[in-house]
Amino acid sequence: MDIDRLLSQIRTEIQPQIGRGRVADYIPALAEVAPDQFGMAIALATGECHGVGDWLKPFSLQSISKIFSLALALAENEESIWTRVGREPSGNAFNSLVQLEYENGIPRNPFINAGALVVTDHLSGVVDCAADAVLQLLRIESGNPDIGYDLQVAESETAHADRTLALAHFLASYGNLRGDVPTVVDEYVRQCAIAISCRDLALAGLFLARHGLRRDGSRMLSPSQTKRINAVMLTCGTYDAAGEFAYRVGLPGKSGVGGGILATVPGRCSIAVWGPGLDNRGNSVAGVAALDRFTTLTGWSVF
Amino acid sequence: MDIDRLLSQIRTEIQPQIGRGRVADYIPALAEVAPDQFGMAIALATGECHGVGDWLKPFSLQSISKIFSLALALAENEESIWTRVGREPSGNAFNSLVQLEYENGIPRNPFINAGALVVTDHLSGVVDCAADAVLQLLRIESGNPDIGYDLQVAESETAHADRTLALAHFLASYGNLRGDVPTVVDEYVRQCAIAISCRDLALAGLFLARHGLRRDGSRMLSPSQTKRINAVMLTCGTYDAAGEFAYRVGLPGKSGVGGGILATVPGRCSIAVWGPGLDNRGNSVAGVAALDRFTTLTGWSVF
Amino acid sequence: MDIDRLLSQIRTEIQPQIGRGRVADYIPALAEVAPDQFGMAIALATGECHGVGDWLKPFSLQSISKIFSLALALAENEESIWTRVGREPSGNAFNSLVQLEYENGIPRNPFINAGALVVTDHLSGVVDCAADAVLQLLRIESGNPDIGYDLQVAESETAHADRTLALAHFLASYGNLRGDVPTVVDEYVRQCAIAISCRDLALAGLFLARHGLRRDGSRMLSPSQTKRINAVMLTCGTYDAAGEFAYRVGLPGKSGVGGGILATVPGRCSIAVWGPGLDNRGNSVAGVAALDRFTTLTGWSVF
Amino acid sequence: MDIDRLLSQIRTEIQPQIGRGRVADYIPALAEVAPDQFGMAIALATGECHGVGDWLKPFSLQSISKIFSLALALAENEESIWTRVGREPSGNAFNSLVQLEYENGIPRNPFINAGALVVTDHLSGVVDCAADAVLQLLRIESGNPDIGYDLQVAESETAHADRTLALAHFLASYGNLRGDVPTVVDEYVRQCAIAISCRDLALAGLFLARHGLRRDGSRMLSPSQTKRINAVMLTCGTYDAAGEFAYRVGLPGKSGVGGGILATVPGRCSIAVWGPGLDNRGNSVAGVAALDRFTTLTGWSVF
Repeated sequence: MDIDRLLSQIRTEIQPQIGRGRVADYIPALAEVAPDQFGMAIALATGECHGVGDWLKPFSLQSISKIFSLALALAENEESIWTRVGREPSGNAFNSLVQLEYENGIPRNPFINAGALVVTDHLSGVVDCAADAVLQLLRIESGNPDIGYDLQVAESETAHADRTLALAHFLASYGNLRGDVPTVVDEYVRQCAIAISCRDLALAGLFLARHGLRRDGSRMLSPSQTKRINAVMLTCGTYDAAGEFAYRVGLPGKSGVGGGILATVPGRCSIAVWGPGLDNRGNSVAGVAALDRFTTLTGWSVF
Repeated sequence: MDIDRLLSQIRTEIQPQIGRGRVADYIPALAEVAPDQFGMAIALATGECHGVGDWLKPFSLQSISKIFSLALALAENEESIWTRVGREPSGNAFNSLVQLEYENGIPRNPFINAGALVVTDHLSGVVDCAADAVLQLLRIESGNPDIGYDLQVAESETAHADRTLALAHFLASYGNLRGDVPTVVDEYVRQCAIAISCRDLALAGLFLARHGLRRDGSRMLSPSQTKRINAVMLTCGTYDAAGEFAYRVGLPGKSGVGGGILATVPGRCSIAVWGPGLDNRGNSVAGVAALDRFTTLTGWSVF
Repeated sequence: MDIDRLLSQIRTEIQPQIGRGRVADYIPALAEVAPDQFGMAIALATGECHGVGDWLKPFSLQSISKIFSLALALAENEESIWTRVGREPSGNAFNSLVQLEYENGIPRNPFINAGALVVTDHLSGVVDCAADAVLQLLRIESGNPDIGYDLQVAESETAHADRTLALAHFLASYGNLRGDVPTVVDEYVRQCAIAISCRDLALAGLFLARHGLRRDGSRMLSPSQTKRINAVMLTCGTYDAAGEFAYRVGLPGKSGVGGGILATVPGRCSIAVWGPGLDNRGNSVAGVAALDRFTTLTGWSVF
Repeated sequence: MDIDRLLSQIRTEIQPQIGRGRVADYIPALAEVAPDQFGMAIALATGECHGVGDWLKPFSLQSISKIFSLALALAENEESIWTRVGREPSGNAFNSLVQLEYENGIPRNPFINAGALVVTDHLSGVVDCAADAVLQLLRIESGNPDIGYDLQVAESETAHADRTLALAHFLASYGNLRGDVPTVVDEYVRQCAIAISCRDLALAGLFLARHGLRRDGSRMLSPSQTKRINAVMLTCGTYDAAGEFAYRVGLPGKSGVGGGILATVPGRCSIAVWGPGLDNRGNSVAGVAALDRFTTLTGWSVF
C-alpha cells in the first residue's frame, strides 16, 4: 500500500469538510485557532511515519491526553485504578455530574472528565507530576523533545475551570480524590494543554497498535492492558458519539476539543488527524471524515 | 394561655423522644454534642419570651441561618435575588447537584444548599460580609451581643467542605456565583457555624410573626416579603420532609442539622426548639415532636 | 364582610386577566372551551354560598377530582394508602416517570398523576367504582344531583391516554397497582371528566374548611385527616408552582387543567374559581389572580 | 485450526464457570431452567458448523432476537428507523424509562427494550408480523424449519409485561409507536420467546460475519449495514457491561437473559454460546468466559 498516495487521496476527498464545524470557543486561546487547517499522520507498526497537510503543526492535545495518563497509570501496574473508575459508556455529557451523584462518585469511565481527574489523581500518587509524566512519554515515543505545554491555553483553561473544580471537589466529597483539589486540577489542565503535531501524536500512540510495545521495543503495557485501552477508546472515546464513530470509522479512537483524534488499527498502525472545526458532539468534522475514508479505502475497520 | 405551663406540658409529653434519633456526624464538632438535651422557647409578638429545658444553651444554627441571610437580602430591596434562585420545593436531597444540572444552575429554592450559596453570594454584593451581617441581625433582634461563631464548628466544616465547594464551583460554571468561590463558601460556612440559644433564636425570628417588623418596631421587610419567607419555609424548610412537617406541625418552619428548628405562627409568635437527635431526613426528632404537640394543644396550625 | 361585594370587586380587579393564558389543548374537548369565561364561588362554613360571573356554569373538574378520591380513601379509614404513596412535593412534572423509577414505584404524593392512579386503585378496592363514588360525593355535598360526567371529555381523554397507561403499567410493574390497568385508568379518566360548576365545587369542598364535617353535620374525616389533605394541597396542589401559589395566595389549593381551582380557608370557607386560560405551569391565570386578590382583600392567607 | 479441539479445550477450561450465576427468575418459565448446562457452536464463514456440549438443545432467544428484527428492518431498506431510535450506548438499565423521558421518546439504541419495541413496531409496518418474520429468518438461515416459539415462555412473559407495556405506551405518548400497543408488545414478546439451539443461532447469525451475505449467497444487508449492526452490538449488546465485554472478549456480541450470546468475528465466523446462569448485569457467566477463552486462544479479538 502506498501510504502517501492514500493520505493524499483522503485529503482530496474530504476537502469539502475542512473548515466545517465550530471551533471550540469556551476559552479564548482555542477560539482563535484558524478553522481551515487539516493534518493527518499514519505511523506504521514498523515505526515509519507518513503525513499530509498540516501534519507537523502543533495543536492542543486536550482530551486525547487521557489515553496517555491512563496508559501510564496502568504501566505503573496500577490496576487498582479500576476500583476508582468504571469502564462503561456513560450516556451522559462528558462533564456531567448527574451520573456521578447517582453512582456515588465512581466515574463511568476514564475518558469523561471526572474519570480523567481520578486517573490523574491516581497517577500523581506514583509519579512526581502526572502532567510532566504524560509530556515525557509523548516526547520519548515521538522522539521530539520539543513538545511542550501551551501556556496560553493552560492559563485560559485555569481561568475557566469552575466546572472541573466542581467535578474534582465532588469526587473528593465521595473520597475518590486523594490529592489536593487545586493541584490535581492543575495537573489535569496542563496535560490537556500540551501542544503536539499529528506526526508526534501518531508516533506516541503507536504502542496501542503494537500490543503494548514502546518504540524502542521495550514493553510498556501487557497485550491485555493495551486491549483494555483500545476497548475503552472504541466504546467511550468520542463523547456521546461513540456508537456513530464505531460505525463510521470502526476503530478505537479518542478525540479532543482541540480538533485532534488518535485512532488505532491494532497490529498495523496508529493514526492522528487534526481539524479544528467540531461537530455538535465535540468531534472534529474533518477528522472523523478522514478516518471514515481511511477505513473505507483500506478495509481496516475492526468490523 | 399560660405559656410556661404549656411549655412544661409539651416537655413532659415529648420526654420519650428526647435523645432519640442520630446526632449529625459528618463533622466531629457536631458529632460530640450530647444527644439527650432539649430546649424550647416561645417569643410572643409582644416581645415577651418564655422557655423550658436547655433553652438558654447555645447550639449550632446551621441551615436555620438561611432564613436570616434571605431576609437580609430581601431587606436590602434585593428582589433581583429571585432571578437567581427559585421558590419551589426540590424533591431532591438538600445538597444534590442533579437538579442544578438539569435546570442550568438555578437552584430550586433558597433553602437547599445551592440556593443558600446564591443568597450568600448575592448578599455579599450589598454588605461587607454576609456572615457578619447575619450575626449582627441575630444579636440585635435577640438583644444578646454575645452570640458568636463556633470556631471549632467552622473549622470542622471548612475541612469537610468539598461538597459545598463543588456546588459553588458548579454554580460559578453557570455564571450564577459572582464572588470568589472560596470567599463565598467561607461566609456560608461561618453563618452556619453561629452558636445560638432557643431564646435568642425565637426572638431573632420574631419579625416573621410580626409581618416584617423588627423588635424595635422599625420595618425590616414588607408584609408581602415576610409572607414570601414564611411560604418558602412551609414548602421547603425541612428538607425532604416538608409535606410531613406541614401536616404534623402545620407551621412555616426551618430546621438545621444542629438539631434546631425555627417556626412561625403568623401574627402570634415565634418558636425555637432544639434537640440534637435527627430523624432520617435530618430534622430534630424531639423538635418536630414538640412543635407537633404545640399546634395540637394550641390549635395554632395554619390548616 | 359583604361577600357579594367582595366577589364583585375581585372580578373587576382581575378583569384584565380573564381570557389570558392558554386553554389546555392536549385533547380536542378541552381545546374548544371559550377562554374569556370566569366564575368564582365562596361557600362559607355555615353552608351559605355566593358567586360571581360564570359561577353556575359547569367546567371540567380534571385534577381537582384528586382531592375527593383521596378524601374518600381516607374516609374509608384507609390510612394504609400512605404506604403506597408519599406526601412530599415532587419537583418534577406532574406526569413524570423519572422520580417513580428512582423511588421504585412509590409516587411522591397523591396529586401527581401516578399518585392519583394509586389512590383511585386503592379506593377501587373498597368501593364499587372509584369514579362513581367521587361523583356521588360531589352530588351529595353540593346538593346538586345533576352533576355528571362529560362523556366527550372522557372519550377524548381515553383516546389520548398513553402517558396515563404508561404510568399505570409502570406502577403495576412495581406491584403498586392492584386492579386491572385499563379499569383503573378508565375510572381515573372518568373522575377527571366530571363537569361541575364553581358553586357546586365550593360546596363540595366545604368539608375541608369544616375540619372534616360534611354539609349535613356528619363527620366525613377527622380533623387530623382534613389537615393532612389541606397540607398536601398547599405543598403539592398546583403542579410545579406550589411555592409560588403558597406565596401569592397563601391557601391550600388544588388546580386542574380544566381551569378550575379549589381553595380552603380553614375554619372559614371554601372557594372555587374557574378561568380556562392556563399559565405555563398549568394553573388558571384568572383563577390564581382572583385568589390572590381574595387573600389580599380579606387578609385570610394562612401566612 | 482444529475447531473441534478448540471447542473441547474451551469447554474444559471454563468448566468451573458452568452452573455459576443466577438463572433469570422474573418469569417462572425461565426460572425452571437447569443451571448446569452449557453449549457452544462456531459457524465458519464457509457455512461449516461445529459445536460442543448442549449445542443442539434449544434455549430462549430473548434479547438476541433484537439483532434479527433490526437486520430485517434494515434489509427492507428501512434506514428511516434511525430517525426513531439512536445508536449510542445508554448508560442506563435496559428497561429504564428515565432516558426516554429526558430525550423525548427516542430510545438510545435498538438493543435496549424501548429501542427494540420501536424496531418491532417499524418492522410491523413493512411485514405482516414482525415475530413471524424473525422466526422465518432464523429457520431459513439455520436450515432448521423446526425452530418455533416457546409458548410457555411467551405466556409467562405476557403475564409479566407491565414494564414492557409501560415502555410501549410511553413511546406512544411521544408519537414514537405507530401500531396498536398490545399488538406491538405481543409481537415483541413472541420474538423473544423463540427457542433456538447454539447450532441454529450461530448459523442464523452468519450473515453478520459474511458482510451481509445470507447462507445461500444472496445479499441480505450491504456491508455498511452489517458493519452498523456489528458496531451497535459491540457498543450496546451486553446491557451495562458493553465496555467490560469489549475488553474481555473484544467482539461484537449480543446477549439475552435466556443465557445465550451471539458473537461475530467479522470475515471469519459466527459464535453462539449458552449457559443459563447470569452475572449481575444479565450476561451468561459461562458464555462470557467461553468467548473470553475463544479470543484469547485464537487471537481473533478485534483489538
